[in-house]
Formats: sequence, structure tokens, C-alpha cells
Amino acid sequence: MMSRFAVKAAVLMLAATFGTGTAWAAESLQDVMKRRSLSQQDLLAAAKTYTPSGKRDEFVVFSSGGQSGQLIVYGIPSMRILKYVGVFTPEPWQGYGYDEESKDILKGGWIDGKEITWGDAHHPAISETNGQYDGQFLFINDKANPRVAVVDLRDFETKQIVANPIYKSEHGGAFVTANTEYVFEAAQYPAPLERKKFYPLEEFNEKYRGGMTYWKFDRKAGRLVPAQSFSVELPPYSQDISDAGKGPSDGWSFTNSFCSERYVGGIEQGRPPFEAGCSAKDTDYLHVINWRKAAELVAQGKAQKINGHNVLSIETAVKEGILFLVPEPKSPHGVDVTPDGKYIIVSGKLDTHVSVYSFEKIQAAIKAGKFESKDPYGIPVVGMRDALHNQVQLGLGPLHTQYDSKQCVAYTSLYVDSQVAKWNYCDGKVLDKIAVHYNIGHLMTMEGDSAGPKGRYLVALNKLSIDRFNPVGPLHPQNHQLIDISNDKMQLIYDMPLPLGEPHYAVAIEASKLKPGVRYKVGTDSRTDKDHPGRARAGEERTERKGNKVTVFGTLIRSHITPEIIEAEVGDEVTINLTNLERAEDETHGFAISAYNVHASIEPGKTISVKFKADKEGVYPYYCTEFCSALHLEMQGYLLVKPKGWKAVAKKDAVKSNYTEADYRATLKRIVDTQAVIDSVVAYITSTNFKDFPDVVSMVEDATDQLGKIPDAKAKHEAAAGKKDWDNANLWAEQVYQYQVKAADIGLRAKTYLDQHGAKKVK
Amino acid sequence: MMSRFAVKAAVLMLAATFGTGTAWAAESLQDVMKRRSLSQQDLLAAAKTYTPSGKRDEFVVFSSGGQSGQLIVYGIPSMRILKYVGVFTPEPWQGYGYDEESKDILKGGWIDGKEITWGDAHHPAISETNGQYDGQFLFINDKANPRVAVVDLRDFETKQIVANPIYKSEHGGAFVTANTEYVFEAAQYPAPLERKKFYPLEEFNEKYRGGMTYWKFDRKAGRLVPAQSFSVELPPYSQDISDAGKGPSDGWSFTNSFCSERYVGGIEQGRPPFEAGCSAKDTDYLHVINWRKAAELVAQGKAQKINGHNVLSIETAVKEGILFLVPEPKSPHGVDVTPDGKYIIVSGKLDTHVSVYSFEKIQAAIKAGKFESKDPYGIPVVGMRDALHNQVQLGLGPLHTQYDSKQCVAYTSLYVDSQVAKWNYCDGKVLDKIAVHYNIGHLMTMEGDSAGPKGRYLVALNKLSIDRFNPVGPLHPQNHQLIDISNDKMQLIYDMPLPLGEPHYAVAIEASKLKPGVRYKVGTDSRTDKDHPGRARAGEERTERKGNKVTVFGTLIRSHITPEIIEAEVGDEVTINLTNLERAEDETHGFAISAYNVHASIEPGKTISVKFKADKEGVYPYYCTEFCSALHLEMQGYLLVKPKGWKAVAKKDAVKSNYTEADYRATLKRIVDTQAVIDSVVAYITSTNFKDFPDVVSMVEDATDQLGKIPDAKAKHEAAAGKKDWDNANLWAEQVYQYQVKAADIGLRAKTYLDQHGAKKVK
Repeated sequence: MMSRFAVKAAVLMLAATFGTGTAWAAESLQDVMKRRSLSQQDLLAAAKTYTPSGKRDEFVVFSSGGQSGQLIVYGIPSMRILKYVGVFTPEPWQGYGYDEESKDILKGGWIDGKEITWGDAHHPAISETNGQYDGQFLFINDKANPRVAVVDLRDFETKQIVANPIYKSEHGGAFVTANTEYVFEAAQYPAPLERKKFYPLEEFNEKYRGGMTYWKFDRKAGRLVPAQSFSVELPPYSQDISDAGKGPSDGWSFTNSFCSERYVGGIEQGRPPFEAGCSAKDTDYLHVINWRKAAELVAQGKAQKINGHNVLSIETAVKEGILFLVPEPKSPHGVDVTPDGKYIIVSGKLDTHVSVYSFEKIQAAIKAGKFESKDPYGIPVVGMRDALHNQVQLGLGPLHTQYDSKQCVAYTSLYVDSQVAKWNYCDGKVLDKIAVHYNIGHLMTMEGDSAGPKGRYLVALNKLSIDRFNPVGPLHPQNHQLIDISNDKMQLIYDMPLPLGEPHYAVAIEASKLKPGVRYKVGTDSRTDKDHPGRARAGEERTERKGNKVTVFGTLIRSHITPEIIEAEVGDEVTINLTNLERAEDETHGFAISAYNVHASIEPGKTISVKFKADKEGVYPYYCTEFCSALHLEMQGYLLVKPKGWKAVAKKDAVKSNYTEADYRATLKRIVDTQAVIDSVVAYITSTNFKDFPDVVSMVEDATDQLGKIPDAKAKHEAAAGKKDWDNANLWAEQVYQYQVKAADIGLRAKTYLDQHGAKKVK
Repeated sequence: MMSRFAVKAAVLMLAATFGTGTAWAAESLQDVMKRRSLSQQDLLAAAKTYTPSGKRDEFVVFSSGGQSGQLIVYGIPSMRILKYVGVFTPEPWQGYGYDEESKDILKGGWIDGKEITWGDAHHPAISETNGQYDGQFLFINDKANPRVAVVDLRDFETKQIVANPIYKSEHGGAFVTANTEYVFEAAQYPAPLERKKFYPLEEFNEKYRGGMTYWKFDRKAGRLVPAQSFSVELPPYSQDISDAGKGPSDGWSFTNSFCSERYVGGIEQGRPPFEAGCSAKDTDYLHVINWRKAAELVAQGKAQKINGHNVLSIETAVKEGILFLVPEPKSPHGVDVTPDGKYIIVSGKLDTHVSVYSFEKIQAAIKAGKFESKDPYGIPVVGMRDALHNQVQLGLGPLHTQYDSKQCVAYTSLYVDSQVAKWNYCDGKVLDKIAVHYNIGHLMTMEGDSAGPKGRYLVALNKLSIDRFNPVGPLHPQNHQLIDISNDKMQLIYDMPLPLGEPHYAVAIEASKLKPGVRYKVGTDSRTDKDHPGRARAGEERTERKGNKVTVFGTLIRSHITPEIIEAEVGDEVTINLTNLERAEDETHGFAISAYNVHASIEPGKTISVKFKADKEGVYPYYCTEFCSALHLEMQGYLLVKPKGWKAVAKKDAVKSNYTEADYRATLKRIVDTQAVIDSVVAYITSTNFKDFPDVVSMVEDATDQLGKIPDAKAKHEAAAGKKDWDNANLWAEQVYQYQVKAADIGLRAKTYLDQHGAKKVK
């Protein structure tokens, strides 16, 4: 009655019968539209966004995760979220902040020796070449704990976090210069620049400062270089969003500000709150900085050191003519350089206009020495009239501007109106408006802050979702709305809930520019891009003990961990290095030790290490946390933590299985049956043009790898059988069968792939 | 040239012109289908899944997050992810594990005094009443660190984590009994039951054990009750997935197992690995337990205490007739009781069949004392033939079964074949098969493991995505595929990437059964459901100092934090309690202190506390991390950490603003203009049947709240003006204006809502 794992040709036939050419379902399109109350417009939007199984998105978005401290990756137009990348916050699925290598990355972001376990990720920026996104690196800042992180887009991993040496908070970062020479960030809330130094609020004007930091980027190393980085000291004006010049304005950066009133609240003392005093005056200041010349000044030794970091003082900056101010409508947020680099568009949240500044006019005023005044710190102020190209009335709460591929066309978010305005910044005409839900913050067009915007789509990053989605309790998701901008009229085509984090800004890149890998060279430390000292190849696995230090050099492959038993004594310091020996795409293994708070994620080729003190006696199972194969539950082992000085009592053969020759013969029979199936799958695959499909070629390689392990296990079961050791004979024969099952699994995947991708028969 | 924030009727008109009745875009449906290579079938799938802005999903899914330790919530059929809920892993967007209240929840899950910062979340279960999902609570287990968590579906927050007192790992949980009397979990990898006790592997058979734990659930309190919970000791068979009986089988639970060979690997010592030895025999054991009688035995004092927990020994369980075994095809995963409670379907991963056991037959055998043998621990074994209803050959790697609303219809995932089989468990006929990508683990139909499955949709929880989505590096997302099961033939209609975590199992509930709230009673500790001792109402804010302990009782409202300045000395212990005074839906505030690793998320009505040692001198800004209003950047304050014994030098009036009477008059003028806009919006709203829209009624209440704050600020600016104190006069007038802006913002939202929801004019 019981059937063994009968991998018979009959089963394959059954699969073929049902697996392909499914008849069409009964409900018609009209039925569905009626049942779901879809309009023709809804259907058009569905057709514009729906992405069938296996088809790819046109653009890939990188969105900040706000207080989640993470980076969110999603596709356009499907609006499906592809990945959360751990940046400022530990995340165990990725092993980020759990293995020693990524702990080191997070440690780079500690402040004053204090561990920081989260971030307020705000503005992602993709590396640029000649002002165009090049798809190599991504930078993102942390507002709460002023830091910048580097993510490598070859593997979507965070490689570096640097803490700002002089700020207490920041906002205007990360932004990149046109060739990613520098990644920069502006301070936010003014504070003393010296580390751990208190000055009373009464000395706000004298001792509190803002600033602008330029981090030097070494593209070849893929890392920021703190020693070659510098800052420009700025007045305590709450610097905010920034942007880099490009084309004619390359070499300059622009940073706006709020609360240039330098107001200090104190509602608990009866004083009007910050919100009243920080928005009382009509204008704040746009900061205009010649960063290229600033870098030269630093090279000439004109910077002072604050906390070991190069800082150009306001005095030096003014004297050397690299720092200027221009009044801007109060409490602005976005400052956005046009694709041609000629204009800088500022949105003043409490003004109904956007203000288009002309870089040429600003430069002319500077050259002519035509300033309307100096600010209290002696910085020359260019008059608004002398700097403006035009001002355009758009609506309530203009916040951020992005650009179209069509010349002069811009899109600006209106926070209070909850709208997006499409307008022409050359002639100042408003072209279209569309309502969004609700309270849009930033917006984003495709490569829309680069020198070559791609048009097509716009995403409204709405801060509230209120009634848009099924309710999930008091804490709501955010709402990113996709808008089709290919036509004169904007059309809302998708609402996407953001399930974790509060994105502030996002950038979208053409999908074809990204070429991430699927595996590492075997033994790679992915956080340093170097060979991992703890790497091991198959057969090199070992456990070393030196004093109370136990070091494991282990490997992982479907479906076993080597070693399967790790022995330690209470008090030992245990380091476990693990290399994933898989080459197959998506064959990640996880590693967890029960109740010891140990976890890691190890992608193909990667080596990681975990470290812990064996501080409690007992038996602690470990296992692979990824469902990596049919026998993933059996990918297990035991950490044995023995009392100090434990002596084994008389060893007995507890694991004797009492298999018989009949068991062994039965297993051999199963191996023969299974091989027949594998042969039939191989025959099928090789009867097609499978070599035209790189994914199938990889699968075939992977299956061949699995089959390649068989001779060793076969030699073992035959040797044991020769000694009539039926236990070992049967068990090693079982292991042969396990390799066969894995090969068959991959073979069937390859067959399905070929069926579904229209493979052709070849002779 | 500069315009102030001219909230004029003209702007509103502009908004009306562009905001509604957008003309239709140029591209036709046929154009779009051609451009995007969509087939008619794709279009039908799009129509079945696309959910226009503001429309809701029919079902809500709760999916485990695997090694992320989180719970993932998404909608069907749109497959949009609505929320990640923090369960076993800290997550800062939610403040989970960052405020003191949620830290306490996580602390409940510490093991042996060791902090555990992640979990391997496996199986969510929704609370049931009479075997039907009731939508009140959700339970989920942690495989790595054996624990169970309780999530309250009124606010989607984790309320409790309990650590299993006797296991080292578990898998077969969480499952609930038909009226949620108990939530249960089965052990996974055998280990000694005593805490921190080592026995060598040679004593595996004698000293290592599995088990089954039944956690008593107090539905009124919404918490598990450890003191009323118990376990049944089981042999070291690697217990696995479980299910509860229902209808005729209510009172019983079913748990399968693998590695009943009790094999111990050791590949590093030349022994065949676990995977070979753990799948060598044809059958493992289905454990059949009478939990209702077990609970009575515990009440009668027949349990022994292990680590303070009630455990019924194998000996007692056998003697009292509550524990039986039935052979099952080897290495099974799913054990799934049919909706009518009559059958138990077991999928043996290494068998091509599913096995349908008859509860009636098992009971008959037990009653007749008809056992084929006893296992090595003396447990009676019912013969397979005596227990089976039938066995049905489905394909390679059957893993898990769920049910349709149609009688006798079941769906089983086939891991190796990467297919779903639809079949009839009454007559054993295979009805349909569909290919999925790739390697499906669990599957899920709508309420498909309850007594009342809803049919309609099925989700395949695939473990690999390989080539399905745009590449995002070596670590791939998972892939949940949505399948329409309303017709005879299954139809694949959506591929959803899972961007964070590796879901194992999921449950889906009719959306209408969920009724979460959007706000708390003001001053609630959401983790205890009680009044928070640190709560404060408006006007009650204060800072208290006792010795070196500084305690703040603060509040948050658009757009200020009270207090705005917090003073401490180095070494002080600072506790900050914060109450969100908002009533408006989705008006969450965040709270961060720069560089002090402090963050919290405070939803409307909630009170939280954060605690830290002011261990470094300096000035540390704090701010609201949610984009809560136009002036959210100005929702800020300063933590001043002074050197010990700091004495203020001569105070000077550093914050003098030098406003003039003209400034004050200009602000008053702006207030009058803005009030005119507000009046026009109010007139518009009240001219409609807005009372028919509860969401608008809430917005009107919220706007009225904002306007209600004006008289106090008005009194202040008038009093200051009376004293010719133009600084305070202008600043308090500005504050009046800020309240107006917030009211106008909400009013405009309400107006848009009415426009878009077809509000009618009333006289």
C-alpha cells in the first residue's frame, strides 16, 4: 500500500498533462469589470501597470525608509516592492547587524562611542557620471544621527556608514556632484560644532552653527574617504535640502534653510513655540557655495580642524569668495537644479509660488560685487530681484520639484493642496494639475533630478494614506501614487501602500542600467569585497581550539551544514565562519543557533562569521533558516556546550540504526529508478536549444554539481557494503539518493522553464 | 514681488479647475497592450487584481516573515503589502523595541536571561470561534528561539511574547483550538527538556525529548496564561507541523514528525549527514493527542513540573490513553484537518502521495484497542491501514494542503514539481494542476484551514524567485503567486515579490471581519491596554526632577512638542513620557533625540516613554520624525546636557526677534485673509451632505479642534500688543496663523474627499 518516493516517468507525464496549456477561465473581462466595479479608465490603468509573471519593470526605484532606517527598492510601473535593504538598522533576514562583518559596518556609524541601532533615512542619491545616473552606487543620509551610508548596487549591500564629525543632525543629504567627486550633506538643527560641548541657548547666535559637509568619494574603492573630506561652517539657519550644480553650474552647490530667524521656542515657559517663531519672516536664505574652490582652499591648508575634521570657517569662506546667500520665500523645502544646470527652483512651503533662480544672474551679481546686504555673519547677500528668473503661482504648500524629459517642463508637489502641478519653468505657465491623496511630500520623476530625465512616470510620495487601504490599526502605511505623465494630462494609475517606514525621497533609474550579480566569488567577505580569512572550501572544514577560543571553518550546501556537531565548554568564545558553497542563483542559506541569539544569511559564495560566548551549558540545535531544498528541515546540527571539564562516560553507539542488507538493496533500487527519471529529464533538456537560455545553462551546471558529489558517496556505500556494514552502506546510499533528488528538482525547474519560454526541439 | 502665503479664493478656484474631471489620456487600451506585450489573458488577470485608488481588498493576509521575525500583512486580490508588524525583532518605524513599553514585550521573550533580538517566525494563526476565524487575535511562533507571540487585531500590535519553558526549538505552532481555548506548538529538534542541562548525544534516545505545548488563552485579557498552560512529553522524533481537530475531532490535536529514525549526523567525523539518516525509513509518526483530556489530567495534578512548567510524561500520557501514533509517509510537512473535521491529510515530502486519514477510523481502532505495535517509548501505534481513508498520487514533494469552499476539494503544494494540485479527498480524484515558480512551500486558500473556507483565491508561497523580478543582488525576494480558484481550471493571476523576510505560512481572512481602530483613548499604554502612568493632557505638561532622575510628562500635537527644551546634567537618568494629543486619523508623531539612540512612534491617543542616561555633555536636538504637517520640520526642541554643577552666566535675551508693530499688523492681515479662505471651505463643506461621510465628519472635528486652539493664542497676542511687546504680539499672532493653516489643510482634504465621493448639494 505504501509507496516509496516513486519518481516514475508516469508522474512526469501527469505533470505535463496538467502543467501546460491550461484552458481559459470562465469569467469574461466584462464579467470581471462588472463584479469589481471597474471603469474603462481603471482598466486602462490596470493595463499600464499590471506586469505578468516573469516580465520585468522598466524602472527601479530606491526610496528612503524614514525612521525604519532602511532603503526600499520597488519597480515601476508594477509598484511591487522588490527589497528592503538594511542600512542604519539591523535586520535579521539579511543577517545585517547579526554577522560580524555587517556589525562592523554599523559600528562605523556609532557616535561618540555609542551604539546607534536605527536611523532616519531621508534622501537617497544614485552615483552620477556627467550628471547622468550610472547605476553603480547609492548614498543615503540619516537625519537623526547625522550619517551617510554607501550601498553598492552590484549586490545591494551597505558597505560603509560614516558619522558626521561636527553636526548633531542633518537633512540636506545625500546629494552627489555631477561626477560623484563628492557626496554632500547639510546640517539641520544648529548646535555647537564641537563634540560633547555644551553652550546655553542664550549663546545660540554666537556658538551654535550649521554647515555643509562634502564627503570625498573614491569610486574605485567604492568608499567615502573621511580624511579627504571637509565642511564649510554656516550660520545657525537650519540648513535643509540641497542640490548640486550641473553643466554651467557644476562646481557649485545650493542649500536652502528655514528658521533663519534663529528663533528658539519654549512653549513650556510660556514662549511661543518654534513653529510660530521659525516662520515669522517672509524670507529665508538660499546658500550658494563654490565647492570646487572650497576643496582647493582645503588643499591649500586654509581649513581649521574641528574634531579632527577640516572646516572652512565662515570668515575664510567669505574672504575667499566661495559663500553667498540669496533670499528665498520662507520655510522652503526643495531646491532643485534644472537638467541643463541653468536654473535653481525653490519651493517655499508657506508661499504659493515657486521661485526660479537663474544661475547666470547669480554669477553676474557675484562677479559684479552687487550685493544688497550682508547677513549678521558677514556673508554677502545677492538681492532676490537680481537672482530670480521668474516666480510662478502654483498653489498651497509647494514643496519639491522634478523634471520631465520635455524641455522646460517641471512637476511640483503642493503639500497643503494635496496636488501635483505640471508647469513650464521657462515661460512660467501652469500646464496641468492633479489631485493626490493626501499631503504629498516629495515627488519623483524617472531620473528626474539628473541631467537626463526620462519622463514617462511620476510618483507622488504621500505622507498620509488615511482611507486609501484596508485598515491596519492606528499606524497607517504611507501611500506612493503612480502618475502617468506621458501625455498632456497627468493620469493617476496606481496607489501603493508602503508597509514599513516613512519614505521622504526616492530616486528612479532605468532598470537596464542596473547589473547586480547573483553570486560572490567563493569565500568573499561581502562587506569588504575581499577574501574572507575564515573561508573554507569543501573538504577544508575544521574546528580549531586555542585556549578557550573555539573557531569553526564551516560550509553550507543543500542540505547539510559541515560540521554537524560543534563542541564547546561553558565560557568558551566561539567563532563560526561559514561559506555558502552554492553556485545556483537564489540558493541562499541561513544559519541560526537556538536560544543563543545567533543568525546569519549567507548568499552563494559568501563567507560570514558569527561570534558568541558559550555562556550557558546545554544542547542547542542549529539549522538553516532558508527553505533551500526538500530536506531543508534536516539541514541541522547541534552545538553542545558542556560543563567545564566534562568527561565523557563510557561511549556507546547510540546512533546505531540497525539497517539490513534488504534496506540497502531497496535504496539501491530507488537510486536506479531515480536515475532513470534524471536521464529522461536530461534527454528532454538536451533535445532542446537549452543553451540559448542562460538561466537554464546555470541550472544544468547546478544539477551537474549535485550529480558530481555522487561518486564519493557511492564509493562509501560500496565500501561499507563490502564490509557488510549495512548501516553505513544504507546511509551513504541514502545520501546518493539525496543528491539525485536535488538534481531532479533542478532538472524539473529547467524543464518547466524551457516549456514556458518556447524552447525549440533540436536534433 | 514677493508674495506672502496668499491663501486666496483664487487659488482654490485654480485647484478646482485642474483638480477634477481630468480629460482622458491619449493612449488607447489596444496601444497599451501592444506596447507592453500583454495578452488577453494578462488583461483579464489585470482586471481581476487591479484595485483602483481608494477601493479595498476582499481578503487580508497575515504572512509570517521568517527570519525577519516580523508579520507581513497584505491584501487580496491587489497583493499590495499593507504593513509589517514588529513581533520578534525591534523595528524603529513602529518604535517597536525602542520605547520602554514595547521593550517590555520583547523582554518577555528573553531566554535564560539572554536578550533575543530576532526570531524565525513560521506559522500565524487567527483566533477562532466555533472553528471560524473571528478576526480578534493573531498568534505566531518563533522556530529558532521557541516562543509564541500574541498580536491584537484591534491595533495590529504585539502584546505578548512567551518563551517555551522546555524546548530548544519548535516548529509546529502556532495553531489554535476551535474556540481558541489553547494555542499550541510542537517541539522540533530534540534536546534535553531541562534548562541549561547538557547530556551527550550518546544519550539521545534516553535524555533528548520532543513535546507538545498547549498555551491557555484568556480571550478577555487577550493574553496567554503560562500558569494554566502545559505540555505533553514526546519521544525525540523531531515533531513538526500540527493542526487542531474541529467538529467531530475537536478536543484532539495532530502533529507529524520527521527523523523518527532518531539519527544523529556528524559529516565532519565521516558519518553520513543528518539528511541521509533522517530520511532513510519509509515512515515517520503522526502524533494523535487528546488535549482536552490532557488538560483534565493536569487539573487533577497528574503533571510533573519541569522548569516550573506542567508536563505530562509519556508514561502518564500512555497510561491515561491520551497519546497515540500512526505511521505516515516519511518526512511529511503539512498535517491538515478537513473543514468538517473528519479527515486529516498528511503530505509526505518524499512520497508522491498525500495520505487521507479518517478520524473515525483512528478512534475506532483506539476504542477497540487495535494497535499494530508500540513504539520504543511504549506509545501504542495504530496501523496505517486501520487509519487511512485513502492515498492519492499527486506528484513530487507534496507539502501542504488547504481547502476550498466546495465540498471535498483540496489543494496541495508540490515542492519538487513546483506545482499546485487540485484534487478531491473524498473520492481521490486529481482535478487540475498548475505550474508555479519555483519550489512552492506552503500554500493558502481564503480561510482555508478553518471550518468555513471561502474559496476564490489561492496563494502559492514560493521559496525562490530566481528570474521572476528585476534583479536586486544575490539575496532575492520570495515570490507569492496569486491563483484564481473560482473556476474548474486554476489561473495564475499575480506574482508578488516579498521584499523582506522569508514567509513560511500565511492565513487570509475576509476583510469585513477586521475592525481595527484608528486611535487610542488619550493616554493609553498600547502594550498593556491600560492608562499610562506617564500620560499628560494639554496644559498638564511638566518636567520633574528627583535626585538625578529627570522625568518629563510631555505632549505632541501639530506642530509642536511640549516641552521644547529639556534640561539635564551629565549622569542624569532621563525618562520622557509623551502623549499624542491628536484625534485625527493617521496623525502619528515620531520622536527622536539626535545621537542619543532614542526613537518612538506615537499614534493618536497613545502614551509612550523613552529612557536613557544623559551620559554625554552637549546640545542634542529632538524632533518629530513623521511628516505630520506643513511645519513638521519646525516640530523640534533641544535636549541640553550640561556639565555637572553648571551655573548659568549672566542671562541675556538671546532670542529677541525685534518685530515691529508693522510686522504684527501684517500678520493680523494675513490671519483675516486666511480666515476668509477657511470660511469659504466651511461654506462649501456645509453646503453638502458631508454628514453622510464619516471620514469627513472626523476631518471636520479635527479642523474644529485646531480652530479651538486659536482663542488662547489670540488672547496672548492681544495682551502683548496691549503692552507694545511686538515680539510676543507677532509671534503669538503667527501661532494663530499656524492653527489656521492646519485647519485649512484639513478643510481642503475634506473638500477633495467630498468632490471625489460624489457628495450632493443640500440647501
